[in-house]
Amino acid sequence: MSEADFQYIIDTFFTLFSMVLIIFMVPGFAMLEAGLVRTKNVTSVLTINVMIYAVASMAFLLVGYTLAFGSWENSSMSIWAAFMFQMAFVGKTVNIMSGGVSERVKIIPLMFFTIIMGAIIYPSVVNISWGADFLNGTILDINMYDLAGSTVIHSTGGWALLAAIMIIGARKGRYKDGKIRVIPASNVPLVVLGALLLWIGWFGFNGGSVGSISSVENANLVAKTIMNTNTAGLSGAIIAGFIMYVRYKLFDITMILNGALGGLVAVTAGPDLYDVYTPILIGLIGGSLVVFAVPLFDKLKLDDPVGALSVHLVNGIWGTLAVGIFVDSVSILDQLKGIGVVALFAFTSSYIVLFIINKIIPFRAEDDVQVEGLDVNEVGVEAYPEFKRAI
Amino acid sequence: MSEADFQYIIDTFFTLFSMVLIIFMVPGFAMLEAGLVRTKNVTSVLTINVMIYAVASMAFLLVGYTLAFGSWENSSMSIWAAFMFQMAFVGKTVNIMSGGVSERVKIIPLMFFTIIMGAIIYPSVVNISWGADFLNGTILDINMYDLAGSTVIHSTGGWALLAAIMIIGARKGRYKDGKIRVIPASNVPLVVLGALLLWIGWFGFNGGSVGSISSVENANLVAKTIMNTNTAGLSGAIIAGFIMYVRYKLFDITMILNGALGGLVAVTAGPDLYDVYTPILIGLIGGSLVVFAVPLFDKLKLDDPVGALSVHLVNGIWGTLAVGIFVDSVSILDQLKGIGVVALFAFTSSYIVLFIINKIIPFRAEDDVQVEGLDVNEVGVEAYPEFKRAI
Amino acid sequence: MSEADFQYIIDTFFTLFSMVLIIFMVPGFAMLEAGLVRTKNVTSVLTINVMIYAVASMAFLLVGYTLAFGSWENSSMSIWAAFMFQMAFVGKTVNIMSGGVSERVKIIPLMFFTIIMGAIIYPSVVNISWGADFLNGTILDINMYDLAGSTVIHSTGGWALLAAIMIIGARKGRYKDGKIRVIPASNVPLVVLGALLLWIGWFGFNGGSVGSISSVENANLVAKTIMNTNTAGLSGAIIAGFIMYVRYKLFDITMILNGALGGLVAVTAGPDLYDVYTPILIGLIGGSLVVFAVPLFDKLKLDDPVGALSVHLVNGIWGTLAVGIFVDSVSILDQLKGIGVVALFAFTSSYIVLFIINKIIPFRAEDDVQVEGLDVNEVGVEAYPEFKRAI
Repeated sequence: MSEADFQYIIDTFFTLFSMVLIIFMVPGFAMLEAGLVRTKNVTSVLTINVMIYAVASMAFLLVGYTLAFGSWENSSMSIWAAFMFQMAFVGKTVNIMSGGVSERVKIIPLMFFTIIMGAIIYPSVVNISWGADFLNGTILDINMYDLAGSTVIHSTGGWALLAAIMIIGARKGRYKDGKIRVIPASNVPLVVLGALLLWIGWFGFNGGSVGSISSVENANLVAKTIMNTNTAGLSGAIIAGFIMYVRYKLFDITMILNGALGGLVAVTAGPDLYDVYTPILIGLIGGSLVVFAVPLFDKLKLDDPVGALSVHLVNGIWGTLAVGIFVDSVSILDQLKGIGVVALFAFTSSYIVLFIINKIIPFRAEDDVQVEGLDVNEVGVEAYPEFKRAI
Repeated sequence: MSEADFQYIIDTFFTLFSMVLIIFMVPGFAMLEAGLVRTKNVTSVLTINVMIYAVASMAFLLVGYTLAFGSWENSSMSIWAAFMFQMAFVGKTVNIMSGGVSERVKIIPLMFFTIIMGAIIYPSVVNISWGADFLNGTILDINMYDLAGSTVIHSTGGWALLAAIMIIGARKGRYKDGKIRVIPASNVPLVVLGALLLWIGWFGFNGGSVGSISSVENANLVAKTIMNTNTAGLSGAIIAGFIMYVRYKLFDITMILNGALGGLVAVTAGPDLYDVYTPILIGLIGGSLVVFAVPLFDKLKLDDPVGALSVHLVNGIWGTLAVGIFVDSVSILDQLKGIGVVALFAFTSSYIVLFIINKIIPFRAEDDVQVEGLDVNEVGVEAYPEFKRAI
Repeated sequence: MSEADFQYIIDTFFTLFSMVLIIFMVPGFAMLEAGLVRTKNVTSVLTINVMIYAVASMAFLLVGYTLAFGSWENSSMSIWAAFMFQMAFVGKTVNIMSGGVSERVKIIPLMFFTIIMGAIIYPSVVNISWGADFLNGTILDINMYDLAGSTVIHSTGGWALLAAIMIIGARKGRYKDGKIRVIPASNVPLVVLGALLLWIGWFGFNGGSVGSISSVENANLVAKTIMNTNTAGLSGAIIAGFIMYVRYKLFDITMILNGALGGLVAVTAGPDLYDVYTPILIGLIGGSLVVFAVPLFDKLKLDDPVGALSVHLVNGIWGTLAVGIFVDSVSILDQLKGIGVVALFAFTSSYIVLFIINKIIPFRAEDDVQVEGLDVNEVGVEAYPEFKRAI
């Protein structure tokens, strides 16, 4: 057997393995968000998660992949494995956005946005960052290092979310008389399960993004990438727990998990380039950013029930900058330009698309629907019909 | 290292990987069914799921594998990996059956049926379809193409379920005065988690059924199989959501998930043979069949709390036919004959075995046990003892 | 490509695969324990599980790995993969301990113990059993066969738990007027989900401990190890179900799962050395031991809400002995000596460390905190705030 054949086989297998880990993020996001929202909105959130996976993936299969990569060709592994790996990413950008507008977003307009995001917006970001690059030679051509998508995935989703929150507004009753009403998570075990499934999915996300495990060098690179990914999650969780304890003498588990996720987002741009200690620092900063950003967005009345802006947008930016800061061969200006161009494109295009859809079919559930709950009105199925409500 | 050794190593590893994905279907079925039944029957369903895995697998280890394959030999990979992969399938046929008679089936007689199913009935179906083939040369010899078991697994389980429903009857109070009493799922997040774990398991089920990833050709085949499997799930979910919305203006999440599972069952017979667009059509038809079959079985008073007849039996048949329809080299008559012979054998043998067991130890829980709930009476453990019931 | 390079690549990939399966034990333990405790203590248990993973892993990264193995070198696979695999183990020993003192242990002192366990105690046990071996040449030098840690992981965690229960005491109200108050699991689906995730994790735990899959011989060994691991879990579940039914005419699902876990712990010392039938016997004994040990520990007033002493300590010892009994080439005296030395070291060191920490920051939650629940007092987040309590 030729070395090329060996590598083709091993990298196909490895990419399928990585893809499967990423698919665990589908139940991961679904459980995380179902646990964070109120019981009356749980089946709505679950339906949105399942439908995003179905619709965004189908849009990417029919249109998006070709837009991103120009052609269905690959000589280093099976094109079908390469496709599945890329497809596993697409729904995540919409998940990030949909989670942050939970408890007041309607399913139908969200599905139209999902089609556009999966077919055009996200594939365009991939095109200019990792793909065919239609900005090549223009003044906007970017040269950012972003291994697994701190910017391409997480910031893109975050910018779409920011646009969505601006258009859709806060949940009814969330900000009233200058006060912020605390709305607690309804099912914390699901939150923990979801966050840990996301954590595991990240090994596939970042490890698989190395693209090959079939040489000694790449095997080392993949293993170090996975190790560094994990390390930033560890330190993100630790610092969030530490800050919460120092401030409140309480270990708020939802903040600890968001700290871990913040660390994971932050390390995603360059886990292959760091030594094994730098991710500790990146995660410490990432986890801290989450803890401080969550109340800040609330002050700005940007209502985000799952903390997605803090986890994905803030840390997507921080993580992309971090590669420029900690890695000599990567220019911080290139990173800034990449962040800026993607921000401009993702925010503007999302805003325009959301604005147009919103004119035709409003995203925002009516006040009485929000009070009664979206589950009864949008899904027709309650999440826990046999359990008596305390509130 | 010789090429044969290389292939042996890679295919052993790949088969273990695939097997592990299938084992995720054990919590998958358990969570799906635990979420779909009423709170008073949840630990009963969970116990049945765990015990089926234990008992059916042990029966297959001690008796079934030898009956199916004739000998414990394998030159292309470790025999222990080959065994584990096949063993991972066996409990599924009983899961399909047990789920459909939830909320009124007793554990003890079900365990006796599980032994017979794991030791004899399912291994016999494997024998004539994939294995030693003791019908070879007879008039009943079948030549069906069924890569990963649309017929061998899903229809077999479905026929056993049909026999079981005929013998055990509907849940008390389900059909009364000509009306169908709607019994809603008690915990929808568990339903979603379970269905998504099943979906992930399917990648191992179908991908692993290719049998080898250790050549360039096979690597492509495995990757395409996994991609096509996923695609049919996507379109099954989409069409089910679409139909539910058109009909009721509601996105019934349990129907969407059953639509996805229907698409996955349907593509299972030939995902390696299709181009990448055919599975879209197969899933669209599969998901539609589920939506229309669920009320049909209710009209026939075949009470199936989890929709297993619609998902597994109807789509098992559709999927096996589809290979004959869409693939030139596969004869639709061969497919029909395979469907027919397996139907005849699986239904008849299941019916007889269930009938005999039922005479000795009745399957059906007494009316007062059904009213009080099977958990207290069969398991002695309530699922949610600290939660106040609303109904 | 050289054979050495091929093996390096495959074994790096295989070790990462195994590591990922073990990481599924993090949600596994979290869900199992969250389901077993009362609703008022659920977020406390979840927080502890997440923080143990973060803190113990970080301690192992910064200190423990070097103490265990002496150096960061590995020529047979990527050192980063080897690290991640070993790191995946370390939290488990603390999980075993923390689970058994649930519902009355405070987070802060537990985190200090976690640091010592992850940095020193567990790495020292690894050092003398699998690692650099600083007892080499001394009278305490051990020559125990323990493939994946019946003693090194499970007994070590069990001895730490025994020390912790002795220092912390039973939950308030558990043993009163000579009677044992039964405290039922609050969420049984989570218990089942958690136990099944642990089961799947065990495939990585034991399979990965073979250390290599990159020769025909090792591929067979890995596959047999995984098969034997599973078989002992099957028979452990079956015997526990059988005994419960014979005694009480009830299939107590929590005992069935603990029986399965007991079988899995017991087979862990030598799954690569047994034929495929011996694990049936090992699991039957392991599952039986759990059923009989659980009430025994209660008679001794060793309050262990999750049955960890019975599952991990009793079966850790049994499993290590079993290798000496069933495998000719392994001396039962060597096994006994290994069990004894590890017991002495793990129990004594844990006791001393726990005792000292306890003098500075008491582990035990005050009576009123236990009555109100640890969630409100330690985490500030309730697990199910919208659900009305029945009790």
